[in-house]
Amino acid sequence: MAVQTVASTTDSTVDLGPAAALSCRECGHRVPLGPVFACEECFGPLEIAYDFSAYDAEELRKRIEAGPANIWRYAPLLPVPADVATKPNINPGWTQLVKADNLARELGVDAGKLFIKDDSGNPTHSFKDRVVAQALEAARAFGFTTLSCSSTGNLAGAVGAAAARAGFRSCVFIPHDLEQGKVVMAAVYGGELVGIEGNYDDVNRFCSELIGDPAGEGWGFVNVNLRPYYAEGSKTLAYEICEQLGWQLPDQIVVPIASGSQLTKIDKGLQELIKLGLVEDKPYKIFGAQAEGCSPVSVAFKAGHDVVRPQKPNTIAKSLAIGNPADGPYVLDIARRTGGAVEDVTDEQVVDAIKVLARTEGIFAETAGGVTVGVTRKLIENGVLDPTKTTVVLNTGDGLKTLDAVAGTGLTATIRPNLDSFREAGLA
Amino acid sequence: MAVQTVASTTDSTVDLGPAAALSCRECGHRVPLGPVFACEECFGPLEIAYDFSAYDAEELRKRIEAGPANIWRYAPLLPVPADVATKPNINPGWTQLVKADNLARELGVDAGKLFIKDDSGNPTHSFKDRVVAQALEAARAFGFTTLSCSSTGNLAGAVGAAAARAGFRSCVFIPHDLEQGKVVMAAVYGGELVGIEGNYDDVNRFCSELIGDPAGEGWGFVNVNLRPYYAEGSKTLAYEICEQLGWQLPDQIVVPIASGSQLTKIDKGLQELIKLGLVEDKPYKIFGAQAEGCSPVSVAFKAGHDVVRPQKPNTIAKSLAIGNPADGPYVLDIARRTGGAVEDVTDEQVVDAIKVLARTEGIFAETAGGVTVGVTRKLIENGVLDPTKTTVVLNTGDGLKTLDAVAGTGLTATIRPNLDSFREAGLA
Repeated sequence: MAVQTVASTTDSTVDLGPAAALSCRECGHRVPLGPVFACEECFGPLEIAYDFSAYDAEELRKRIEAGPANIWRYAPLLPVPADVATKPNINPGWTQLVKADNLARELGVDAGKLFIKDDSGNPTHSFKDRVVAQALEAARAFGFTTLSCSSTGNLAGAVGAAAARAGFRSCVFIPHDLEQGKVVMAAVYGGELVGIEGNYDDVNRFCSELIGDPAGEGWGFVNVNLRPYYAEGSKTLAYEICEQLGWQLPDQIVVPIASGSQLTKIDKGLQELIKLGLVEDKPYKIFGAQAEGCSPVSVAFKAGHDVVRPQKPNTIAKSLAIGNPADGPYVLDIARRTGGAVEDVTDEQVVDAIKVLARTEGIFAETAGGVTVGVTRKLIENGVLDPTKTTVVLNTGDGLKTLDAVAGTGLTATIRPNLDSFREAGLA
Repeated sequence: MAVQTVASTTDSTVDLGPAAALSCRECGHRVPLGPVFACEECFGPLEIAYDFSAYDAEELRKRIEAGPANIWRYAPLLPVPADVATKPNINPGWTQLVKADNLARELGVDAGKLFIKDDSGNPTHSFKDRVVAQALEAARAFGFTTLSCSSTGNLAGAVGAAAARAGFRSCVFIPHDLEQGKVVMAAVYGGELVGIEGNYDDVNRFCSELIGDPAGEGWGFVNVNLRPYYAEGSKTLAYEICEQLGWQLPDQIVVPIASGSQLTKIDKGLQELIKLGLVEDKPYKIFGAQAEGCSPVSVAFKAGHDVVRPQKPNTIAKSLAIGNPADGPYVLDIARRTGGAVEDVTDEQVVDAIKVLARTEGIFAETAGGVTVGVTRKLIENGVLDPTKTTVVLNTGDGLKTLDAVAGTGLTATIRPNLDSFREAGLA
């Protein structure tokens, strides 16, 4: 289903490259490309269907390799116009795939087999830049002039920054009583930053109301009415990992789960590369990672359920704290189909994993990175993840945004400014 | 002087690629490569002399373009072994050169002529990753096992991260009473983090003492005994800017001044590219940027002095707050020789410039980036910088590390979660 050849049903005024139509993930119903996200037949989620029929594998690979050092090198595989790299956008991606031999030693993985895909190198230091950059191109194609979202963290910064660069108005909605630091990170880009008197659910409810109202005309909510386009940005993680491994599939990938969308799109990206002949087909396993304090998918996986029972989140991994993840059932499918698993770790294990990753590889991860590294350790200890196989662990954010998680870290010694004091402290 | 062909005086056990010797910037005295930084004849600063005699311009350009997307693409021009990219290091560089058309409009620069070199995309989000990565390779070549520095900010993180990745012990010295947030950013990498009872001057004095003592054996202080190597890392900014402009020199570059080293090495890098035939020779102007509260070089420039009179720093741009900049006189030389200038802006202008850059280009800069953007604006208003010429402005750090500077930024509106309240606030 991921790679489809279709008669074009595209609105002729919309140029989004190889994107041919929107297709319902549940019933397959197709509609022309537009700012819609739910199937009119069955209310299932819409996703992009592509026409990749003209591609020759060797030519495509060369074209990608000659492209820019950002996600637009994959423009032929994304819902964007061919000249996307020339337009003002935040240009995320092509982040480092770090060979993590020190961490491998610590976790008992074979040397040369463990990699961290470090998305803290993106412009606003989280993977959200990938999906927002993608949503912005859709917004441009549909003639929207305001880019919007509800958020309490990474997404707010990504939307603010991308809108500023591209000359869009931005309007980000947040609960009115958010911590001052988070407000500053969202406010600095100069767009509208609107505090809503209420909690995060109230914010989301209000946004849905706004989309259905004439007041919301011309507004692109990146993860609502632009969601099918937005979500495709996560495919670029799969593309980059394979290209950086020398056009090979990894054996195992550990992906954080918030809504679950990222994990499903990584699988979609890998499937596309196989079908296009850019990588050799072989089995791979996808593992999902959650914090125990928000582990609805992990709980469902372990119980053998096909549906996900919502939870009320209570974890320091706030960027993953979605209690009712929309793509949960699809995540369960993929983990089971590929022979992977979904696992969770405690907040204490998250903090410990952040420190282990920083100490071994010099990568200061957000709490979400602590979740994936912590889950990787647990999966190895439980014999679920094979430490002899090529394994890629995602770090999707930056520790500077969640300093509180490691606030206990501090000086290892205090001395007077002389050599005697230095020697006494045992530092020589 | 920048590009020299020499008979090798290199210690035969040290492979640092094209680096042939250390040469005194003042008297030209040459010594073999080693962990020394001051001339034994005249106490002048030592810098790297290269043997670039074997290079053919066209071949070199192709070799660089085929290299990795980090500073090691320039390995043939740096004091590193040819296989440097295969060794564990932090691998900074190849950061975005952002065409800043929105900022250009705001500052009155011609469209397509203004660029931001955004070094916040480096692994620990400042340009310090470039110089530390370089110092680390020298430390490896000299058999050091501990990487060290004194720092109150960016350098601490860069040293901690690079040492962790490369398997060095690290020991970072800071004043014992630093703010908790800065301590956490330095401590998370798990090396020794030693608080010194005293102020920053006491810390530096102690480090000098340690280098001269047996207790400091095997210790590489990145910006003291490894300084000649460390400093060369800044050349990569010049290389990247030219390559990203299509192998062309910019007409004007605006560079922040702390010690002044970065500015002098950018000039050295540009001169090398000209002499190697990688760019066409043409005049360029280098402008230095300081905060008014620490403006010793700017004051000397305006007064027509050749020497720099030390100041006691008092500015929010703490990463630039060096009151007695070692390379100040060389900066004055370069600014005058190239027809550039040195200018300073108030803290208020720094904050305003941070906001302008974020609002127009979606780049959240550290205070140092506010200094360069603020100075660029002032130089244009004063008719010193030509708004019709290709101009590159450096952003060397990340706003997440200096959140306090923009702490006043906040919500643009607060509303109740309904459309009436939304309309009343004039947001539609």
